Amino acid sequence: MDKIKIAVDCMGGDNAPGEIVKGCIEALKTHDDILILVGKNDVINKELSAYSYDKNRIEIVDAKEVISTDEVPTVAIRKKKNSSMVVGLNLVKEGKASAFISAGNTGALLTGATFIIGRLKGVERPALAAYIPTEKGPSLLLDVGANADCKPSYLVQFAHMGAIYYENIMGKENPSVGIVNIGLEEEKGNQLTKEAYQLLKETDLNFIGNAEARDIMANVADVIVCDGFVGNILLKSGEGITASLFRLIKGAIMKSIVSKIGALLCVGSLKELVKSMDYSNANGAPFLGLNSLVVKAHGSSNARDIVGAVSQCRSFIEKDIVNKIKEKM
Amino acid sequence: MDKIKIAVDCMGGDNAPGEIVKGCIEALKTHDDILILVGKNDVINKELSAYSYDKNRIEIVDAKEVISTDEVPTVAIRKKKNSSMVVGLNLVKEGKASAFISAGNTGALLTGATFIIGRLKGVERPALAAYIPTEKGPSLLLDVGANADCKPSYLVQFAHMGAIYYENIMGKENPSVGIVNIGLEEEKGNQLTKEAYQLLKETDLNFIGNAEARDIMANVADVIVCDGFVGNILLKSGEGITASLFRLIKGAIMKSIVSKIGALLCVGSLKELVKSMDYSNANGAPFLGLNSLVVKAHGSSNARDIVGAVSQCRSFIEKDIVNKIKEKM
Repeated sequence: MDKIKIAVDCMGGDNAPGEIVKGCIEALKTHDDILILVGKNDVINKELSAYSYDKNRIEIVDAKEVISTDEVPTVAIRKKKNSSMVVGLNLVKEGKASAFISAGNTGALLTGATFIIGRLKGVERPALAAYIPTEKGPSLLLDVGANADCKPSYLVQFAHMGAIYYENIMGKENPSVGIVNIGLEEEKGNQLTKEAYQLLKETDLNFIGNAEARDIMANVADVIVCDGFVGNILLKSGEGITASLFRLIKGAIMKSIVSKIGALLCVGSLKELVKSMDYSNANGAPFLGLNSLVVKAHGSSNARDIVGAVSQCRSFIEKDIVNKIKEKM
Repeated sequence: MDKIKIAVDCMGGDNAPGEIVKGCIEALKTHDDILILVGKNDVINKELSAYSYDKNRIEIVDAKEVISTDEVPTVAIRKKKNSSMVVGLNLVKEGKASAFISAGNTGALLTGATFIIGRLKGVERPALAAYIPTEKGPSLLLDVGANADCKPSYLVQFAHMGAIYYENIMGKENPSVGIVNIGLEEEKGNQLTKEAYQLLKETDLNFIGNAEARDIMANVADVIVCDGFVGNILLKSGEGITASLFRLIKGAIMKSIVSKIGALLCVGSLKELVKSMDYSNANGAPFLGLNSLVVKAHGSSNARDIVGAVSQCRSFIEKDIVNKIKEKM
């Protein structure tokens, strides 16, 4: 296999450019592919000067503009042709890179990816897929924010794309698929879920029916589909609740010497757990249904997350997921 | 003020009739009102025989049928005219009781309440309101499941009804109101939230804009509105996540002697916290926008929860919330 080229937006995210560039350098150690760093030339060069690395495996593509998180996506993509995001997406479109990673403005990335790279033939709407932690390992949730309003047929496509992704990346054949819903029975839910249920029943997927929000943490299905509004709410409320709970527990413990000592004794046992309850999708969330791969890294990504996102891109490309989705649709 | 009569469905919920009847007897100790126990005469009498109580303050109204949790709501309400639920709702309709509490089939209760007791003039859709725990006390969330599909105008009405309820029950003037959304900016969200945002801006409510799911636990607004699908998802996923987390923490701690000892030292400090993270709405969830009060008690309600629900009814009636909503609409 030829060396893979992965483009990385060095200007997007809370910790750009420092952590992004650092992550790229660290990612070089885990594989032998080539990274294209996209952003302001001088800024990137300044960051790079702090490291020693194989210069044949880092390329820089200059992009003079930056899309910030508070810009309106459609306007930003249209007006800032020289932004790191638009330049990076064009590298993928032109075949100069196999994938693009960005921790920047989510809306702009999704809009830009759809406009510039384009949907796979037969895909009505690409979907952003993210892992959510459960008691028995992660479930894949999609859409988590690309499509706030959905038609039932979109959910069926999300299910197919999610199943292909899960099967190839998690290595589980014929993964189970459910719909996020407010009841188990097939007549429960809103118009969207009721109609999607009927359509999913007719597919060749391992469809297990409705997944109640209360049971998602108990790992009721490998792949769970919903519209992007509900998916984003689930992902973000999970993130908020776990963060609040850990903060509250810490606060309660700090109130007394006795419980402080107790907590010290528990730290070892709880470390693994806190890590497993991570909603941050450290490897980034892939945008499924495009002609090429685009990965959204968390806005607060640090170097380690960028290493994870690069590694995600490699698996995605090696497993040829774009073509597998293409064949199915 | 005359003695209040509150009707209680003794046949609904996981712990009926035992815990429901027990709760009614206990509730007698906290106030001087009259409780009407609705259900199978012989079953209720058998339960009552275990207690000594003021016979002038307990009435029984016989209802030979029971609506179970797996029945289709509309069919059950139409066919089972002699069910404890339909009989109880009719008591309220006929003015023989001021409120009705049930821990039974939620869908049937909402359907029955709307059909039998009816909506207040001007109310498009009644909404089920529930508290969700936050780091600074509870926020009121509505709708949590009565209306899976909503129009923007419904959300505005939910906001008015929720604000009246919150102001009177929580004693906070001019409570803040937000919309559950996937972004802070007013152009964010789905069709429903975008339109509801514009309508809410024009009201006299203390509207603070969008409440991001991630921030709800940080108590961004006193009253938060959304469609019943999203509200139910938020409530139930919160319930599921906290339950799973506490279970996982316990499991991790039990793995080692050291952490077991540590946990013993923390128990005192954490007790209050675990209690405050309760999603079970122990006092029941009121159904706002009806001509009289109907309270949905949690399906797993025990005696203490029924005492809470009775107390909720009393405050609601004393504060005359039905008429306050009526005046506003």
